[in-house]
Amino acid sequence: MAGSSFGRLFRVTAWGESHGPGIGVVVDGCPPGLPLDAAAVQEDLDRRRPGQSELVTPRREADRVRIESGVYRGKTTGHPIAMSVRNRDARPADYRAFGTAFRPGHADFTMQAKYGLRDPGGGGRSSARVTVAHVAAGAVARLFLSRRYGVTCTAWVRRVGDVEAAVDPERVTRERVEQSPTRCPDPEAAEQIRELIARTRSRGDSLGGVVECCALGVPPGLGEPVFDKLEADLARAMLAINASKGFEIGSGFAGTRWTGSRHNDLFRTEGGRIVTATNHAGGVLGGISTGMPVVFRVAFKPTSTIRKPQPSVDIAGNPVEVAGKGRHDPCVLPRAAPIVEAMACLVLADHALRQTAIRTGG
Amino acid sequence: MAGSSFGRLFRVTAWGESHGPGIGVVVDGCPPGLPLDAAAVQEDLDRRRPGQSELVTPRREADRVRIESGVYRGKTTGHPIAMSVRNRDARPADYRAFGTAFRPGHADFTMQAKYGLRDPGGGGRSSARVTVAHVAAGAVARLFLSRRYGVTCTAWVRRVGDVEAAVDPERVTRERVEQSPTRCPDPEAAEQIRELIARTRSRGDSLGGVVECCALGVPPGLGEPVFDKLEADLARAMLAINASKGFEIGSGFAGTRWTGSRHNDLFRTEGGRIVTATNHAGGVLGGISTGMPVVFRVAFKPTSTIRKPQPSVDIAGNPVEVAGKGRHDPCVLPRAAPIVEAMACLVLADHALRQTAIRTGG
Amino acid sequence: MAGSSFGRLFRVTAWGESHGPGIGVVVDGCPPGLPLDAAAVQEDLDRRRPGQSELVTPRREADRVRIESGVYRGKTTGHPIAMSVRNRDARPADYRAFGTAFRPGHADFTMQAKYGLRDPGGGGRSSARVTVAHVAAGAVARLFLSRRYGVTCTAWVRRVGDVEAAVDPERVTRERVEQSPTRCPDPEAAEQIRELIARTRSRGDSLGGVVECCALGVPPGLGEPVFDKLEADLARAMLAINASKGFEIGSGFAGTRWTGSRHNDLFRTEGGRIVTATNHAGGVLGGISTGMPVVFRVAFKPTSTIRKPQPSVDIAGNPVEVAGKGRHDPCVLPRAAPIVEAMACLVLADHALRQTAIRTGG
Amino acid sequence: MAGSSFGRLFRVTAWGESHGPGIGVVVDGCPPGLPLDAAAVQEDLDRRRPGQSELVTPRREADRVRIESGVYRGKTTGHPIAMSVRNRDARPADYRAFGTAFRPGHADFTMQAKYGLRDPGGGGRSSARVTVAHVAAGAVARLFLSRRYGVTCTAWVRRVGDVEAAVDPERVTRERVEQSPTRCPDPEAAEQIRELIARTRSRGDSLGGVVECCALGVPPGLGEPVFDKLEADLARAMLAINASKGFEIGSGFAGTRWTGSRHNDLFRTEGGRIVTATNHAGGVLGGISTGMPVVFRVAFKPTSTIRKPQPSVDIAGNPVEVAGKGRHDPCVLPRAAPIVEAMACLVLADHALRQTAIRTGG
Repeated sequence: MAGSSFGRLFRVTAWGESHGPGIGVVVDGCPPGLPLDAAAVQEDLDRRRPGQSELVTPRREADRVRIESGVYRGKTTGHPIAMSVRNRDARPADYRAFGTAFRPGHADFTMQAKYGLRDPGGGGRSSARVTVAHVAAGAVARLFLSRRYGVTCTAWVRRVGDVEAAVDPERVTRERVEQSPTRCPDPEAAEQIRELIARTRSRGDSLGGVVECCALGVPPGLGEPVFDKLEADLARAMLAINASKGFEIGSGFAGTRWTGSRHNDLFRTEGGRIVTATNHAGGVLGGISTGMPVVFRVAFKPTSTIRKPQPSVDIAGNPVEVAGKGRHDPCVLPRAAPIVEAMACLVLADHALRQTAIRTGG
Repeated sequence: MAGSSFGRLFRVTAWGESHGPGIGVVVDGCPPGLPLDAAAVQEDLDRRRPGQSELVTPRREADRVRIESGVYRGKTTGHPIAMSVRNRDARPADYRAFGTAFRPGHADFTMQAKYGLRDPGGGGRSSARVTVAHVAAGAVARLFLSRRYGVTCTAWVRRVGDVEAAVDPERVTRERVEQSPTRCPDPEAAEQIRELIARTRSRGDSLGGVVECCALGVPPGLGEPVFDKLEADLARAMLAINASKGFEIGSGFAGTRWTGSRHNDLFRTEGGRIVTATNHAGGVLGGISTGMPVVFRVAFKPTSTIRKPQPSVDIAGNPVEVAGKGRHDPCVLPRAAPIVEAMACLVLADHALRQTAIRTGG
Repeated sequence: MAGSSFGRLFRVTAWGESHGPGIGVVVDGCPPGLPLDAAAVQEDLDRRRPGQSELVTPRREADRVRIESGVYRGKTTGHPIAMSVRNRDARPADYRAFGTAFRPGHADFTMQAKYGLRDPGGGGRSSARVTVAHVAAGAVARLFLSRRYGVTCTAWVRRVGDVEAAVDPERVTRERVEQSPTRCPDPEAAEQIRELIARTRSRGDSLGGVVECCALGVPPGLGEPVFDKLEADLARAMLAINASKGFEIGSGFAGTRWTGSRHNDLFRTEGGRIVTATNHAGGVLGGISTGMPVVFRVAFKPTSTIRKPQPSVDIAGNPVEVAGKGRHDPCVLPRAAPIVEAMACLVLADHALRQTAIRTGG
Repeated sequence: MAGSSFGRLFRVTAWGESHGPGIGVVVDGCPPGLPLDAAAVQEDLDRRRPGQSELVTPRREADRVRIESGVYRGKTTGHPIAMSVRNRDARPADYRAFGTAFRPGHADFTMQAKYGLRDPGGGGRSSARVTVAHVAAGAVARLFLSRRYGVTCTAWVRRVGDVEAAVDPERVTRERVEQSPTRCPDPEAAEQIRELIARTRSRGDSLGGVVECCALGVPPGLGEPVFDKLEADLARAMLAINASKGFEIGSGFAGTRWTGSRHNDLFRTEGGRIVTATNHAGGVLGGISTGMPVVFRVAFKPTSTIRKPQPSVDIAGNPVEVAGKGRHDPCVLPRAAPIVEAMACLVLADHALRQTAIRTGG
């Protein structure tokens, strides 16, 4: 059914396949009067783009975005904002070799099972290339959040394999994240990660890890108390990113080992505002933002495409052997960070608009 | 805005406050012809009910469900199924003592910030009591999944504090889970957990932990490839449960430390079906079910209500001290397991109907 | 699928069958802080109630509404407002006589075709009795619109059979409408209609007609320019009322005979506000309210249930004869007016909240 | 808010402005395996296209559609189908002359009131040019309905001004409709309409009228009994078309003058199928299709843009005079017919998929 949309008031509808003509997105519900031009969107797309460093896939895509509607004289009009990029370096032939073989860890089998047919070109609609749409839409949401609420949202590589960065979430800036192609803001860990990725790639293997994200300036009151909790929508957004396997907010899985007396964040007054002394909650209580930083982490599995040959089966169930020939990332983490940011911005923008209807509607 | 619904084709709308007249839910979209009576729903509600053992809140609620529409001569009609239970043992006065104080770890502050006013009775709409609706609706979804696909879905307590159970997800049955009031199917761990909870409660403190869930018999093809991935909707459902702080599917956070060659589940043919040799994916690839068991875990923080006095502030920002007087669970895990099951069934039923529209619509 | 909800931000979910335990509705999205008690809802329900006069069905239902959630100390909390009424005078046995016969003009045949089974009690979910839910929800919407915007919304019987009232839509008040059990505010026409209905009923036949509705005080800017036009949502709401066959706004079908130079409403300034000299548009331009009165009409077919015996077929296709034995209205118009009002208020409240997200969100 | 989508399972999201780069649409939810190429869509777009005859606007647009996703080797994949056309003959300068003047009968004033700013180019998002998206999406829906159910859906001009065609809805074919540029299938009336339009245009004035539409082959069971009635969704779809002011199905407004004994369509068995002897219902009972032809009519007001100068006001409320300089249709009816068809197909396709989830889901 119609499952290619995300958000309710700040609503995104995405389209496109990895090796088709292009990828696009329609952002519907962005309020009028927001300054917007292609350059602002391009900046975020450039961070997601392939071919940025030796750490990522060598596929060469300029990913130049076109804004095709919804903007008049440099401002949003309140109407749908259509954006698209062309696929330039599509090489569907690279995938023909797989024929009807099901690549391990990929959606080849499940897409066939679901639809009864599939476009084999680089995964088609299952490819991580579809996240071009997420990032373009997220850039609009980010601008909206920044202009309207002063929110900043930054994501970075917290861990790759067993190499973990030492970072204070509230102090990470985009500049520090961008200093290394690993997108790890701890220079020492970044260097180890760079080496680990290079070593693993050369062995024909791949790595996973954890991306962390922090949104500062989120006003109290975003999110709803039962099903549409802010953390629930963030979790959904993060598990919707290709290759993610987990989500935790605030103290997450580690905090489940504590007692309540340690875990509870105590309220106090600071400069006339009510804040909490600690932030084990990760900026949410009962599904609603507290005004403290929203901090969460996302688990990404090791890339499924590897050069090492692996046994599998084809559509008829016959044994085959597959080995990655297409271009791919030995570790998705560096490019996942901007996607995490984008999805977080979409969730926050949606809940910001929803809260408007609740508080100023009454 | 209108945020009290869940699901798209199998759609649930919930209402009610902890210390109001009752809790209810409307299930819209359940196909016609499904045998349904109150007893089947009651069985699941009885597992969620307070006062079942010394491990949980002593609030005494019979939680007798009434089915008020959508069933004719013991079968669903295809029309909305309205169900409700009365609150019998509501004691809003227990909460009056808190006045406008914000209990640490609770939604008191965020509800006030969001709505500008709040019903203080036991958390009102933020109370875990609202999950009566989740469980009643989930019972209908469970019946639908069982009758139509032979799906079974079981959740249990995997860990409380640092006590972890040794279990094989594919072999846990509801019977084994129900043998202990802890809902931990490993008898040794169950006993340790029982003692740990008793000890912690007597100190006026609380505990967290992890619930694990496994759905068997899920056909391949449920879930959609971009935003509405099965794991994304499961993540959202789980983070929508009170006190949850994290979700992981299959290998989850641990698997992010592995290499791709270890993580990839290899396809093979078994009895004419395509299966995978391992199930690190947890039953999903690219957002779509593989036909293997769907296995995931949910992190629950230690209960926020504790008897130990804690400093806080009131609505005016003045310092106050609060200590749990209302009835509460020293550890939510035993009662969280049936809620996890219910939410998982709602997600699976929704995607099962969606897949029907995709494959038989064309 | 899940089709029992209406509205997007001010969202209603309805349940219940004509001869089941009761009828109910959940209103989700009503902003917090609105004064609300059962008496305000009851007043509107009393106007829809059967048994008010000799013109309508003698079924005797008190239709006492209970508010079960979402209100605290006389004000809405922002949480779902559940309301329900009991069915007291259900007589499913009256319908058993029909067995599996399909009553002409009724949904018996289509419900059977759609669901494969049906609850025959007085039409079950197809009965006009389900509009109890519409009116209860509409009463909340009406209060919201009145308090927040000063909107009033009034509907009346404009025509029954060939008897047409002479009324100025902008001057009709609820008081004038309620002076006659016909709900026709033109006393002369009202008397003729009363006689016509009595005469037709005595012949075992039934009548149709037109309800007109006018909303005053609707601010400019409600409605959206492409699919979600205000008039589109009003049309949908009106055609969703049992027995309605048509909708027209402003000049409607008659205006299609005019030329553009006659039809165009000319803008002018009046007391600092921009208004139009005429209102052929009926208060909308391009799907968006102009600030002028919103005026529209709804066509209702003659009641399908008549005492006169009619030939039909049963579920097996065998010829049968049916004659109305259940209680019914010989003309739905008098009771349709409050339902039209209610549905109009639901549409306006929804668009009012949507506009809030557009203008204050940015 | 996000109001540019239509449909729930067969879901359309539209974008684009009259004098921007282009118009586009994403169709999400079309089942996989449907044969689809650009030619099939183009055929429908060519019927909507401007410049087809002297009866319509001389704006010259090739309106060549590109399909950018969702089709692989000539078949739909089940993924979003993105389509777009370029605007070639945009002349925003034609509209600059209006400055901030509000054209009578247009959305200039309401768009300004709603969004606080507007793109003045030919109405921007309010222009009838946006219906390119409706027709492109409707072409996909039409193919789906035709292939899957054998449904045909045809619309024609029933009346312009006072010239009414004599037609039997069940016998009209697309071929007969296309024989005249008026799209009136009654040759005599067509000739009178052609003359009437020419005469009215030469006087600088415009005309309205009625489009009629008939869908044959619709299976019984489409539509839902309470809010999502088939006729309700058709009404909404029709009132969402630019310049429409009314909708009626079956006997419509005329039938409200009849008695029930005349209006009721009597069931009988014909060739093993249950049918009705007459079809005053217009193919629906209680919101659900009966299997008889679905027949409805849509009222279109006379075109608001006329060459005759008319007094108006500008954004500051100052008096101005406006006269149509842009290219426009003196009567929208001939081009409205394919748009009515397209919207009807979207509604029917959506309900067809919904019914699939109801009947095969259970």
